[in-house]
Amino acid sequence: MSINKNNEIDKKYMQIAIELAKKGAGAVNPNPMVGAVVVQDEKVIGTGYHKYFGGPHAEVYALEEAAQNSNDLSNATIYVTLEPCSHYGKTPPCAEKIVKMGLKRCVIGSSDPNPKVAGKGVQILRNAGIEVRENVLKSECDKINQVFFKYIMTKIPYLFLKCAITLDGKIAAKTGNSKWITNEIAREKVQFYRNKFMGIMVGINTVLADNPSLTARVENGINPYRIIIDPHFKTGKNHNIIKENSDEKTIIVTSKNNKNSEKQLDFSENSKVKFVFLNGTKFSFKEILRKIGEIGIDSILLEGGQSLISQAFEENVIDAGEIFIANKILGDEKGKTFIAGFDREKMDEAMILENVKYNIYGKNVGMEFLQKNYN
Amino acid sequence: MSINKNNEIDKKYMQIAIELAKKGAGAVNPNPMVGAVVVQDEKVIGTGYHKYFGGPHAEVYALEEAAQNSNDLSNATIYVTLEPCSHYGKTPPCAEKIVKMGLKRCVIGSSDPNPKVAGKGVQILRNAGIEVRENVLKSECDKINQVFFKYIMTKIPYLFLKCAITLDGKIAAKTGNSKWITNEIAREKVQFYRNKFMGIMVGINTVLADNPSLTARVENGINPYRIIIDPHFKTGKNHNIIKENSDEKTIIVTSKNNKNSEKQLDFSENSKVKFVFLNGTKFSFKEILRKIGEIGIDSILLEGGQSLISQAFEENVIDAGEIFIANKILGDEKGKTFIAGFDREKMDEAMILENVKYNIYGKNVGMEFLQKNYN
Repeated sequence: MSINKNNEIDKKYMQIAIELAKKGAGAVNPNPMVGAVVVQDEKVIGTGYHKYFGGPHAEVYALEEAAQNSNDLSNATIYVTLEPCSHYGKTPPCAEKIVKMGLKRCVIGSSDPNPKVAGKGVQILRNAGIEVRENVLKSECDKINQVFFKYIMTKIPYLFLKCAITLDGKIAAKTGNSKWITNEIAREKVQFYRNKFMGIMVGINTVLADNPSLTARVENGINPYRIIIDPHFKTGKNHNIIKENSDEKTIIVTSKNNKNSEKQLDFSENSKVKFVFLNGTKFSFKEILRKIGEIGIDSILLEGGQSLISQAFEENVIDAGEIFIANKILGDEKGKTFIAGFDREKMDEAMILENVKYNIYGKNVGMEFLQKNYN
Repeated sequence: MSINKNNEIDKKYMQIAIELAKKGAGAVNPNPMVGAVVVQDEKVIGTGYHKYFGGPHAEVYALEEAAQNSNDLSNATIYVTLEPCSHYGKTPPCAEKIVKMGLKRCVIGSSDPNPKVAGKGVQILRNAGIEVRENVLKSECDKINQVFFKYIMTKIPYLFLKCAITLDGKIAAKTGNSKWITNEIAREKVQFYRNKFMGIMVGINTVLADNPSLTARVENGINPYRIIIDPHFKTGKNHNIIKENSDEKTIIVTSKNNKNSEKQLDFSENSKVKFVFLNGTKFSFKEILRKIGEIGIDSILLEGGQSLISQAFEENVIDAGEIFIANKILGDEKGKTFIAGFDREKMDEAMILENVKYNIYGKNVGMEFLQKNYN
């Protein structure tokens, strides 16, 4: 078989592994999504994916199914979207399992992002005489685990911007009224994001203006942590994020000045609100993210408003996002633009959104972008 | 044959006629685009379209080709996107030609929009015993001749808005700098529009800020009329639209106060600029359009800037348009928004763009819209 044909075959099965990996979305967090396919004589004889946090790895499912379908795997190839693990964690190392099952070849998408273990899985395989091919559909494989890759490497949560604007860039009328900008199809996608990321973040002005619940209305979905950036602690007991805190996932990021105040102690004890305290009242976004990362939140959906979004662009902390644009014009310059505060003499000083892709939601459109790449 | 199958067949051939009609784009103006197909025994035996202004009608080409391919058309059907004409104009009436050639059936898309002759073509056909079916793919057929339909019915030019904005709705930085907002692919589409419409319109501030040439850089394209709304006659001799006026298609719309001034007479005589004079210095957009329509211009591409666009929305004179959105954020509220001056308390008071369709230009997107329908 020619090298080119082999390459096409490898891509084909890796694509199947990628689709399998995606099935773990929302359930494996903070583990990575991984898919695996075992192929022998051009037939798929085993498939698997990482199904839930702490559960068996994708390779385990695929290898065990393959063993049931074939007595001899010495001519089989395993395709796996992420380098098989080399360490004893919640499960024994997958690289060793591949060796033990006697496969001929292992094709890998992404390398392990953890610098401490990267390459070790490949080493175990090669030492055992297994043929290894790396980086097949690497960028596609990397793409599905950006949150995991960033967080494991930096301990800083992945920051995804969601914003709904009119054609003239407004997120609210001058009165603060903002219901609704986009249509239902676009708003459903927002629910998807609220389920995908571990936390949602808004500024205090958004709480005061919209009184949002910030829950994920997705069937069987897990509600995200609700993070309010509120330096002067203006959040009230009657706000929905406080009243609807039965899951105890509301977090207020506020000034150290408010620590142990009567109000803060009451919120902690009676409303079960968690607090993150920072110095001063003008927080650095980087510092906010570091603190949120420390408490184990690996990803944040930033939902607004103007001041927080502008600061996020200013500090260049946004990893990716989607901006939903409505077929609607406010036409009032006193309305609130989604971003402000930059000083630009020239058009070519404008910020560029990279790796743009458009999603059409009926009469609305979403500009999806990716500013940073991990792994 | 069942009625349903017949219906499908009629749609199929009408679609071919529509594609033929579109070939006349840019050349038949101010005539309508028309396509015709003659079908016999489920075979196309003649096709035609209106090729150039004043030239033979689509039916003539299609019928003559059909006559060369068949001695007997008594079982033939002609599909035509627009009701065959009934009057003696530059060419003899097509309805009579269809009768004379002895066809069995005539399938029509759009009715004639001219109230004086609408239905008369159909009447001639029916009186001669020809079976007539109307309104097949009517909305598609209407769509290709919106400019013609509006202008023949109202004598008001069709107004199409083109606007390039950043994601935050800006058309320029606070300094007026605006080069470039969109990418080359999007800017090529603008050239297509400049060739499609008979005139381009801008406000004087756009001339002062950008000094545009407003020419259509399309191969074999015809330059549009260049219309500047300039109440106080600020356009100078060194502006490109004056210097590059060898085709004598620059029109300045200005106050009657400037009529017969030294500058005006000089521009008329030496720069070959045409003038439209209006009362006062704050013009009504409707009045501008009426005057432009009077001099025979059937369609206008409105290119800016903020003040003219805002007024066009205010007076509800925009028929359709495309707003090009760049993957770029200015972030400066002192930058110029494409529209301003409305007073909106609530988001649901926003103006809606109707019949929206998105065109993707690499990293930019175009929101195409259609506010009004003619015929």
